[in-house]
Amino acid sequence: MGRRFYGSRKISLGIGDDAALLRPRAGQELVLTCDWFLEGTHFLRDKHPPDSVGWKCLARALSDIAAMGGVPRCFLLSMALPASHTGRWLDGFLGGLRRASRRFGCALAGGDTTQGKQILINITVVGETQAGQAVLRSGARPGDIIYVSGHLGEAELGLQILRSRRPASPKNPLLRKHLYPEPRLPLGQWLAKKALASAMMDLSDGLSSDLRRLCAASGVGALLESEGIPGIRSSDIGRKLGLDPLDLALHGGDDYELLFTVPPRKSRSLPSAFQGVKLTAIGRITRKEKLVVCDGNARERPLVAGGWDPFR
Amino acid sequence: MGRRFYGSRKISLGIGDDAALLRPRAGQELVLTCDWFLEGTHFLRDKHPPDSVGWKCLARALSDIAAMGGVPRCFLLSMALPASHTGRWLDGFLGGLRRASRRFGCALAGGDTTQGKQILINITVVGETQAGQAVLRSGARPGDIIYVSGHLGEAELGLQILRSRRPASPKNPLLRKHLYPEPRLPLGQWLAKKALASAMMDLSDGLSSDLRRLCAASGVGALLESEGIPGIRSSDIGRKLGLDPLDLALHGGDDYELLFTVPPRKSRSLPSAFQGVKLTAIGRITRKEKLVVCDGNARERPLVAGGWDPFR
Repeated sequence: MGRRFYGSRKISLGIGDDAALLRPRAGQELVLTCDWFLEGTHFLRDKHPPDSVGWKCLARALSDIAAMGGVPRCFLLSMALPASHTGRWLDGFLGGLRRASRRFGCALAGGDTTQGKQILINITVVGETQAGQAVLRSGARPGDIIYVSGHLGEAELGLQILRSRRPASPKNPLLRKHLYPEPRLPLGQWLAKKALASAMMDLSDGLSSDLRRLCAASGVGALLESEGIPGIRSSDIGRKLGLDPLDLALHGGDDYELLFTVPPRKSRSLPSAFQGVKLTAIGRITRKEKLVVCDGNARERPLVAGGWDPFR
Repeated sequence: MGRRFYGSRKISLGIGDDAALLRPRAGQELVLTCDWFLEGTHFLRDKHPPDSVGWKCLARALSDIAAMGGVPRCFLLSMALPASHTGRWLDGFLGGLRRASRRFGCALAGGDTTQGKQILINITVVGETQAGQAVLRSGARPGDIIYVSGHLGEAELGLQILRSRRPASPKNPLLRKHLYPEPRLPLGQWLAKKALASAMMDLSDGLSSDLRRLCAASGVGALLESEGIPGIRSSDIGRKLGLDPLDLALHGGDDYELLFTVPPRKSRSLPSAFQGVKLTAIGRITRKEKLVVCDGNARERPLVAGGWDPFR
């Protein structure tokens, strides 16, 4: 990297050697994830402020750690940059990255930098969980209650606002949700520690796509109650842009909320919010391997995957 | 990834969840490294067989683990691919990657795949060393003897053959050195375990560039004896292509040999080869922070960094 990020007592050797050294704590299992953040695919060079690119590339990878109930320890940053972006753009990027790194307690341990025509970012995060405590996607059982954290579809609406020509303040809460997502680390850790969740994953591509993955991993199906799904809180803006709140909640990407299932007897002890983040029951796991949405008039329709897929 | 690579008892959870889980062994320190392997920068789509791309992207990252004296445990693969390359090209790539993974005992633990116009690869390797045993770049002291493994410049000559129009058999040893490098894992582990090396790094960008980094990290200089540097074994091919063996050895990249320093009293117990890999003393560490090459007539000249630099 050529410049020191900031010191950390957790990492015994930082940037500048062939590799970084990390001493694991006794009784801990490592949680490893890596994530692309590519210009044109995950962000737009002329629309996303560099500060947001720095924040979001790390926040996004940390969301995978949250989804396992893990505690982040350090990350590796791989970057390819055009020579034109090594000055002011890079400073903005590193500013946002540094803020996210401090906010979520995850220190930069090393990386690899090269030149490229496009801005390419890859983040690897190393986290830890108490051995045996990680929550997988595969543990959902018929009868389990399906929960989500927060409000779904707001980040997608934020992206639509960013893409539309009208200028919006970066303080706009929908835009903030898109530009500066908050991985649900404390919630994931609490659900894992209390052994409340039978299965868990993060919502990155949209509920309709991600729930399908959780159900496939668990060999089950799901019945969602459309009226129970916590959608956007600013439906008038959505309407102005011609977007349906339910569609946004089902298919909008980039929410980085947690999707998890809780056995019925444990669901009674689940609060309606955790540290200010709303927890909502949106349906239940079924034996039949199908995904169904039920509306207020008890009409059922199949849930079609409409979330984000890079190969579509 | 969508397809299982192969099972491993070391990894408790593989591909398909939000993150991979790895249980560290007691008393071990983790060694973490990540490496780009980009079309146009690190390989050429129409020149490098997909099998070589798969082998080399992992071998290259493993070379950083070797340079710390580490033992590889698992790796994460991030890939972006054009839709046109998800068939035969990907099969060839995965074949080479699988062979390298088995050869070096490093299992695929997870990854992230997306679509892209270019072929983009990023590899993270997690290795282990006995706590406190890793060899850093910063430990070289004045008087230490500088060593390299193998022969330098052969991979660069292999690249020149690949780039020249004349067709060459992939069994050509120079081409093999370029297409299928062997990270010096057993040598690095042995040097670390026996505490023989005071500093170590791998030669990826060329001796003149990499030695500069080792010296900078250690706050020392170096005096090389040009006659002692083990160069290419096929100087006639080099001459045909108009390449000087010493230039190739000093500035050629992609060798993935080890560069290490040994205190004089320990250098006596160093064999001339380790498991068939030649070990050669090429000079010594000096107090003055300069890099100098001395020829057979005791004429000294400064060593200018001529190795590979993506930002040049």
